[in-house]
Order: sequence, then C-alpha cells, then structure tokens
Amino acid sequence: MYRLISELYPICRSITGDGLRETLRILQRQIPLELSEIPTGTQVFDWTVPKEWNIRDAYVKNSSGERVIDFRKSNLHVVNYSVPVRRRMSLAELKDHLFTLPAQPEWIPYRTSYYKESWGFCLSQRQLSAMKEDDYEVCIDSTLEDGHMTYGEFFLPGKTPDEVLISCHACHPSLCNDNLSGIALAVSLARRLNASERCYSYRFLFIPGTIGAITWLALNEKRIPHIKHGLVLTGVGDAGPLHYKKSRRGTADIDRAAAHVLQQSGHPYELLEFSPYGYDERQFCSPGINLPVGRLSRTPHGTFPEYHTSADKLDFVHPDKLGEALAVCLEVFSLLENNGTFINVNPKCEPQLGKRGLYRMIGGQADAGLSEMALLWVLNLSDGNNSLLDIAERSGIQFDALARAAKALQEHDLLGKQNEFMPLAARRAGGKQD
Amino acid sequence: MYRLISELYPICRSITGDGLRETLRILQRQIPLELSEIPTGTQVFDWTVPKEWNIRDAYVKNSSGERVIDFRKSNLHVVNYSVPVRRRMSLAELKDHLFTLPAQPEWIPYRTSYYKESWGFCLSQRQLSAMKEDDYEVCIDSTLEDGHMTYGEFFLPGKTPDEVLISCHACHPSLCNDNLSGIALAVSLARRLNASERCYSYRFLFIPGTIGAITWLALNEKRIPHIKHGLVLTGVGDAGPLHYKKSRRGTADIDRAAAHVLQQSGHPYELLEFSPYGYDERQFCSPGINLPVGRLSRTPHGTFPEYHTSADKLDFVHPDKLGEALAVCLEVFSLLENNGTFINVNPKCEPQLGKRGLYRMIGGQADAGLSEMALLWVLNLSDGNNSLLDIAERSGIQFDALARAAKALQEHDLLGKQNEFMPLAARRAGGKQD
Amino acid sequence: MYRLISELYPICRSITGDGLRETLRILQRQIPLELSEIPTGTQVFDWTVPKEWNIRDAYVKNSSGERVIDFRKSNLHVVNYSVPVRRRMSLAELKDHLFTLPAQPEWIPYRTSYYKESWGFCLSQRQLSAMKEDDYEVCIDSTLEDGHMTYGEFFLPGKTPDEVLISCHACHPSLCNDNLSGIALAVSLARRLNASERCYSYRFLFIPGTIGAITWLALNEKRIPHIKHGLVLTGVGDAGPLHYKKSRRGTADIDRAAAHVLQQSGHPYELLEFSPYGYDERQFCSPGINLPVGRLSRTPHGTFPEYHTSADKLDFVHPDKLGEALAVCLEVFSLLENNGTFINVNPKCEPQLGKRGLYRMIGGQADAGLSEMALLWVLNLSDGNNSLLDIAERSGIQFDALARAAKALQEHDLLGKQNEFMPLAARRAGGKQD
Repeated sequence: MYRLISELYPICRSITGDGLRETLRILQRQIPLELSEIPTGTQVFDWTVPKEWNIRDAYVKNSSGERVIDFRKSNLHVVNYSVPVRRRMSLAELKDHLFTLPAQPEWIPYRTSYYKESWGFCLSQRQLSAMKEDDYEVCIDSTLEDGHMTYGEFFLPGKTPDEVLISCHACHPSLCNDNLSGIALAVSLARRLNASERCYSYRFLFIPGTIGAITWLALNEKRIPHIKHGLVLTGVGDAGPLHYKKSRRGTADIDRAAAHVLQQSGHPYELLEFSPYGYDERQFCSPGINLPVGRLSRTPHGTFPEYHTSADKLDFVHPDKLGEALAVCLEVFSLLENNGTFINVNPKCEPQLGKRGLYRMIGGQADAGLSEMALLWVLNLSDGNNSLLDIAERSGIQFDALARAAKALQEHDLLGKQNEFMPLAARRAGGKQD
Repeated sequence: MYRLISELYPICRSITGDGLRETLRILQRQIPLELSEIPTGTQVFDWTVPKEWNIRDAYVKNSSGERVIDFRKSNLHVVNYSVPVRRRMSLAELKDHLFTLPAQPEWIPYRTSYYKESWGFCLSQRQLSAMKEDDYEVCIDSTLEDGHMTYGEFFLPGKTPDEVLISCHACHPSLCNDNLSGIALAVSLARRLNASERCYSYRFLFIPGTIGAITWLALNEKRIPHIKHGLVLTGVGDAGPLHYKKSRRGTADIDRAAAHVLQQSGHPYELLEFSPYGYDERQFCSPGINLPVGRLSRTPHGTFPEYHTSADKLDFVHPDKLGEALAVCLEVFSLLENNGTFINVNPKCEPQLGKRGLYRMIGGQADAGLSEMALLWVLNLSDGNNSLLDIAERSGIQFDALARAAKALQEHDLLGKQNEFMPLAARRAGGKQD
Repeated sequence: MYRLISELYPICRSITGDGLRETLRILQRQIPLELSEIPTGTQVFDWTVPKEWNIRDAYVKNSSGERVIDFRKSNLHVVNYSVPVRRRMSLAELKDHLFTLPAQPEWIPYRTSYYKESWGFCLSQRQLSAMKEDDYEVCIDSTLEDGHMTYGEFFLPGKTPDEVLISCHACHPSLCNDNLSGIALAVSLARRLNASERCYSYRFLFIPGTIGAITWLALNEKRIPHIKHGLVLTGVGDAGPLHYKKSRRGTADIDRAAAHVLQQSGHPYELLEFSPYGYDERQFCSPGINLPVGRLSRTPHGTFPEYHTSADKLDFVHPDKLGEALAVCLEVFSLLENNGTFINVNPKCEPQLGKRGLYRMIGGQADAGLSEMALLWVLNLSDGNNSLLDIAERSGIQFDALARAAKALQEHDLLGKQNEFMPLAARRAGGKQD
C-alpha cells in the first residue's frame, strides 16, 4: 500500500482532468478498474458535471525572473481549479490571490475553487514573508474547458447480487493521508476479497469527492437498493486511533459490525455519531439515499494541523497503520459475510453437548472455556430473533468464536441450516431470486 | 417585575377574599385580566369551593394591653383561614394555637388551615420565648362565610386556537419568591407576547393554588384539548439555578424545549423528573387531565430554609434572576412557535448550496462555520420524520441557528413550505379548520 | 436452616442414588415432599436419565495397608459417579486418576464424571505430595446400574393455578454453600409460605442439577405455562453480598421485583445480566422454555476459591446470611403477591384527601411525609397502565408503602377494586377460568 501511495503522490489530481485519469490508470495495473468518462454539463440531481481542468505549469516570477512560487515544486502551490492567468502585477495586487497558513509558517495550504471561477496561489508563510514589493509575473498555464469527469469502478461479483460498497475520493493532489491512504486501502481490499470466497458482491468506487459520489448515485439509482452495507475510506494512514463514523441510520449492521470488530481489536478506537459533514458519506447518507454507509478514518479530518496542507506528505502515513486498517476492514466484511440468524432445533433445555464431544467431560471445574460459552450463547439465543451479531453484542463474545460455535453446532445438527429455516441470511444464497 | 412584587408584597392574600381580589385588580392595570367569581359551594370535581375568608385585624394582647402578636406587623402572624376568635386565655391554653420555627428563631412561619375550621397564630421563636404566663386577649377579626373564590385569566389569541397555558398561584400572602415572583413573571410574559407575532394563543391563569386549578379545569373541560403546552411559574426569583420540572409525560415538546433552551443558555440549571407533589402541575398532570405542563422554578420549594417563612421577603428575590427567567421563558415559547417539520425537496444527495450563495466558495478550509452545519443538518434530517427540535437534539446545534437555516432553505426553495407538505406544524396556520 | 445443613452435610449425594434419596427423606420431616423415581433410560428431551450410582466405600491403601485416601473421611475423595474399581497399581499409574488443587494445598477438590464412565480420587495436594512410589491397592466399592433418578417436589396451592417456581439442586455431596444453603432456604420458604395467605401457588423442586431440571420440564410440559415467576436458589449462605441473576427475558416481573427489593434492602447487592452458564436457570431459560426464572445467590459460583472444594464446609455458611436471604425472598414474593394495576376512579385532578383523613390538615409545612407521597404517586399513575411495581420503579418509593397506600385508597373508594376494573392482577382471582 505504501508503495502505491509513493507512486501516486507526485501527481496533480483534481475532480477532473488528466491527473485523475493517470491515477486511475495506475490503479488499473493492480485491479481491473473500469473507467467512466462523464461529459461536462451532465445534470446529476441538483448538480452539473463541471468543466474539465488541466494544468501544465504555474509560477510567480519576480522581476529578476526567479520563480518565487513554482508549481513544479509542489502542485499544492496552485489553488486547484484556477482559471488560466498570465499577468504582471504588484505584490499588493497579487496578495488577494495568495493563501498561507500563518500558524504553520513552513507549510503550504491546500485550496480549491471548483465551483467559482477564480485563481490563486498557496505558499508557506515563510515564502510570503520573503516576497518584496516588485513587479511580478504571474502565470497559470491551465485550461478549464468542456471535457469529462473520470471515475473508476471495480465490481467483484459474489454469490448474491447484494452489494457491499467501498468508496474513496481520488481527487486530492499531493496529499498522502487524504486520500492516497484510502485509495491504497481500497485497492488492497479489492485484491484480498478477490482472492477469497464471497457471498456478497463488492463494488469499489474511486471517485472525485462530492461530485463523483453524486454522479455515481444519479447514474446508478437502480443499483442503490442492492447496496446492503458500505464504507467510505479516508485518512486511514496517520498515527491516530481508528475512528468509525456511523451511518445516518446509526444501528445498521455495518455500524454494529464495525463497533464490534473495533471493540474486540484491542486497538484504541472511537465511534463517532453520524453528522452531515465529512466525506462522501454525506451523499450516501442524504435523506433520499440513506444507505447504510459508514466511514473509517483515523484522526478525523480537520482536527489535526497537517490536514489539507503540504505536511500531509509521505512520512505522515505509516505502513503499519495501513495494515491495521486493512485487517479491521477484512474482519468487518468477514463478520458481515458470516452473520446470519440460526435456529436451535433442540430449544427445550440444553442439548447434551457432552455426548457429541462438544463439552468437557469431567465436571466440577471452576471455569468454563470460552468456546463452551460461545456454544451456550449461540444455542440460547438462536430462537430466530437473534443474528450472530446480536449474540455477539449481548454476550460480549468475539463474533469469530460465535461463528465457529455455530458451525460446530450445525455440523452436529443442533442448529438449523440457514436455508432450511429461512433465516435472514437465506437471501444470500440466492433463494430470493427463485 | 420587581416593582410589581414590591407593590403586591404587603397584601394579605388567601385562596379567597379581598386580598386576592385586590391583587388581581392591581394586575389589571398591566394586562386586561378577566376576573371570575365562583360561588362558595360550587362542586368542582371531587372538591367544593370553600367559604370566603376575610380578615381585618388580629392580635394577642397581654394583660398590659400590648399587642405581643400583631397582624398589622405581618399578615403571616395569623394562620391563613383562621376562624374568628375573641377570647381570653392563659399562655398554656394559647400555646396549642401558636406556631414557630425553633430552628430559625427570628422567622415567622407561614401556615394555613383551609379545609379544617381552626385558628392560630404564627410567630418567631424569639417572640414566643419572650411571652410570659399572663391573661392574654386573643382576637382574630376574620369572617369565613359564603361568598366567592376569585381568579384572573388573560387570553391572548394567536393565529390558531391551540393554546399555551401559563399558570401561577396567587394565594400566598406576604411571601415574595413564592409566589409574587411567578405572578410578576407571568405578567411580563403576557405583555411581551402581546407585543409580538404569535401562532399559538396564550392563556394566563392567576389562581389560588390547588382549588383554583381544579376549579378552572372543572369549569373549562372543553378547553383542555386545545392546550398543547404549558408552564407553571413559581419561585423564579431567588438566587438558585433554574429548575425545570418535567410534565407527567416526560417527553412532551415543552419538556424537550425547556431542556434545550436551558442547556444552550449557559446558565447552571437542573431538570427534575415529574413527581405528583409540588404546585398546580399536580392538577394539570393528574391522570385524567395529563396535560403537557411543566414547571419552571429556581430552588425547589421545601429545599431552602426561607421557604414558607417571613424570610421570603423582598430582598430574597433578585431582579436579574427574574430577568433571566423571563428570557428563558421567551426562548422556550419562541422555540415552540418556530418548531415544525420540514421536507427537503431535494433529498437525493446534497443540493448545491454554493450556487445559491449558501456555502463558502473557496473549499479546502479546515473548519465549516456553524451556520453551514445548521444548513446541512436541517437538509439531512428533514425527511418528514424530524421536527426542528428533533434536529436540535440530535445535532446539538442551537434551535435558533436551525430555525434560521430552515428559513434560508425555504427562501431558496430547498425546503418544503409547511402548508404545502402538511407537516405537523401546518395545524398552526389554521389549515385544520378549513 | 443451619441445623438442617448440618444434618445433611455428611451425606454422599449424587444426581442419583441413596444419598439423594436419604436427603429428600430428611426434608420430608419438614415439608410434605413428594418423591418421584424416574427409571434409568427415560428419554427427557435430548437427554437420557442415567444409571443409578451408589457407593459404599472407597480407598487407596499403601503396601502397609494404610488408607492414604479414605472415602470415609470425606466423600469428596471419590470422583462422583466413579465406576467400581478394585486393582493394584503403581503411583505413576494411579496419578492419572488423582485430582488435586495445587493452589490450595490443604483442600480436596470436588469432581464428577456423570456422563462418561470413569473413576478417580480427589485429594489435597499435601496428601499427594506425601504419597511415595508404592504398590497401591485401589478400591471403589460403587455400583452403576439401571435404577432410578429421584427428585422431590412440593406443591403449595394458592387461590390461583398460576405458579411461582422455586428450584434448587440437591445433588452435591459434602458441600455446604453449594447447595445445602439453597435447599435449606427453599425448605424455610415453603414453611413460611405455607403459613401465610397466598394468591399464587408455589412449587418447590429439589432436584439433581441439569438432568433433574430437564427431567422435570420434560415430564411436566403442561405445567410450564402456569409458571409466572421463578427463582433458582444456590449458594445463599456465604459471607458475600446477594447477587440476583436476571432471567433470559431480563425485564420479567421477577427480575424487577428482585431488583426493587434488593435496592430497598439497604444491603449491598449486585444484579447480574442473564448468561446461559450457571445452574438450572440454564434449562428454565433455554429458548424453547424461556420461563421468567432468575437466580438468587451470594458470591457467584466459580468466583471464590472455596467453590467446589472441601473448604465449602459448615463454617463457610453463616446463619445470619441465610436469614437475610430468606427475608429478601419473602419480600420478593410478597411484592409479587401484592402487585396489581389499579384504576384511579377520580382521575381528573387530585381527590380531596384531607376530607377523608388521608392528608395532614395544617398546610404550609415544608415537608410531606412519605406516605402522602405514596398516596399521590399511586393516584397519579393508576391510569390502568401502571402496576404498583411500575409505580415503585418510577417513584423510588418502597413497594410496601405503595401497597399500603393503595389499600387505604381502595378503602376510601378512590381506587378501583381490581376485579371491578379488570386490571392485570384480576387473573389471580380466577376470573380467567370463567
């Protein structure tokens, strides 16, 4: 994952244009991503796909001809979506178009002006302080013209058409945690899930923030009912603890699965209530869409100083943190894959586990092993009203131990097979389509 | 408010009689109060309107003819509703009729005997200790005869017949916090609400405690279904923090509105669960009436030593505390007036606020202003299931900011007008009557 | 209770056999227990009644003929349900059949092997350490043959066929807290309830653990719907605080009654959530039975070192702790007996309690006595939706005070008689059968 981040880091991405295209083509080397090109002007719900922006070069030169601000040094130096400019002006005039972070004098801020035609430069406070009154040559060699907005999509079919959606924004230029980390995690997840057995189908979206999510939803309204769970992945590589932000529903399976996996993970973590601010969960959780889509991040955006600055660079992201996030995601999906509602076929009193080799044989000991507790909990609550996730929540036992217990009980004909008893999970085996 | 309290302080009020009448007539100078005179013997639910009590003078004279207890010095000296007495007796005999507060030797207690014919004097422990064995002349120059019980009512019509009830007891003699403070607050509220636009109608009751509330409810049963919210105002002038006591329902709009306003007020406050003891909320929240009526007080009755003693005098009440209570009440009513359920007419993904001038134009900043959050929350939760008060509770954003956001969104045709979409609040515009 | 425990302590009980039979016959001197003998091989749900086990003697003799392990000194020395053995063997060979508690070198552990034919000896670590390599004579003079499983049952009829179930396991040999304490408490309860008026019928079960409960349930399925509340009594004599373990339902009346009584008791206590491990509540709360049966214990099994060892002896149990547990049980049952839903026949405003002598006559005091609060709460919440237990929970007032208030209000015709208004409790008077 870290290698992919390093490769993508230098590219100047935006919500449209060649930087985004190049990024997606690099991802195609890893997963068979399908690219969509949506023409400028396409109406998507309340929004319109914007003009395509491309940039070749940009600088501010002083009267000695030195580039005092140079796009080639960092693509953050140009306000993203700046219209073309080629002018001379005084420092005073120029200052209306300069953005710095006085509190972090060494860092360049990241700014955009997607929906208002404008231009500007971002630079460090130190750079600005060094600029003297002069006759400056200002050049932004960009184009903002009708074209296309590109996004990437990878669909991994499972046994059932029910889908898990994994979405990440791919529009930020040279920023690592936000969101090359999410992109890299999504790619790794796709490869790992591709290699394992799946009930669910998985859909991965690599999209420009906001307009990309809105466009995908507008053009794929028919797919929306198939999405049973979803995750937005952003900012998963910094050193902070994992934060799961709940979906608008708050108690969706994805919310409960993420909470359970994080709680059992042993890592520090936090659960955040839904709020309508953030990343593309804003669109997925808008009232007319209302999908069960949560968000996995580490330190929440806007709460760390490096956010949206040049300090969000390669060393801000840690390979082990990416690995930990990958493990948590895989466990969440494994939970969702294995969740189901079973029926104790022997519900009157406990079945005799001992004669089936499922119980310690010499009684009287002070402590029952965990797996016996898992067996007892699964039997006790499998009355058709409790999924394994319900049982995990009530018992405090790790989902995995319960899933293993359920499997053992099924093998001994003590738990009804899902299809036989038509539990909730039956839909996954395709019974619904008959 | 403080001036009105000062003017009313010396009057000897009771649950009937001229002191109460005089009090209500003084209020008539401020608001067009309508007075009702209910004859003695009127049956009101399980109760009967009692005889009218009036008192001219009362004293205990020692054998030297000195008034050792003198009604003219404090009307608390006579047990309220004492039957007429004119006798001579020894100190021992008299002591059965004397009440003091040994723990507060300088204070006169306040006692009543409304429903049992009896008589007595209240005095300070210090006074009692100074009384020697003597031949005392005891005089209570009162009358307890068929007459009337008086109460005052002020109805302030709004755009809808739905009512907010504001009730305070007006039967206590020279006690300031309990309840001249509530009376003064109700009068100020009436004047302020009279001067502002209103959807709701407001009904103000100035009534003798218990029997007054029972009488009003018995004689106005048809009005009860119109009462949508209500507040009992008592003891709002002392130095303690505001206490809101919830209605019997516990989650009525008035309960939630009061909790939200107090929480956002920055002042210390406490929420009290309903209990069937207290003031006239006992009647309004009796099981067969069960109105959504809460109570606003400061230090709860019975929990401060000055309660029901001569120490509840003018300096126990503070003008700034009255002002703060007024501000809180006005905000609670403003919330109820402006509450409503809206419909996001563009519920699929977020609408593009930027093109409507509702969103900052240069993205990438670390912090979204509060009013943007208010816009986003109102849009996200306005699915027809959430009132603005629901949104305030879930978001933690001040109701007022949400109401302003809702207004702005309505003006941009992003939120459905209430009548058009028939939300809960539609009834206020009179739609129901068509 | 302590005397009974002392008498029963030396007997070698098991889940079948003469020790259990003798124990039940001793109980018959105190209560008219009915004994059932269930033949070996009887199928009870998923289980089979096992062979009957009896033991006369057991020992391990060294080559000098000394009994180094001697069943006559403690019946814990033999693994309960050991098959007959008569062999000579080396210490090494013997060690596979020896069980000790290295952490408690003076104590003998308690072990069983009910459902796997096996044999063994339990001994203190100190004893084991003293055993040298030798030619040992091993004798277990037991029989394990077709026979019967015995249990005792006492049914105490009430005014209604609705039952309260009280169950305790009677299968442990010389262990006092577990569960001679529960047996003694059940006997005392039976005698006390027999001597008092009852609405409910009470059924007492003295059964071997697990197989006894399963057998009773399998043979008495028709009785199950009559059981409205139940308690498993185990380990109630040690010095720890009372622990009430909730039924699987979690909010059954028995759960709420026990919580209320313990909370009001002034004793330290803990409430435990249901879990499917423990005593016979495992069977009563299996998903196909799901009875509202909780468990009363002191220190939970398995969490104190003396559990299932020879240290659970007479001095581990305290007469005063048994008495306290008895008092709590009696209060819980008294609560259930007296619980009911009443109707305030005068629900509009408060009734005038004063004219009925139910209210202090001189008003103005700072404090209302508790019983007035009980009257007010009962009146306020008796709208047909709240039982006295509901009122106790909401008001925080002791159930008993509320029951007395309800009785007084009924006597003054202020509360509807239960039958008249068909409240929940009406079923107790037999109305259901008509």
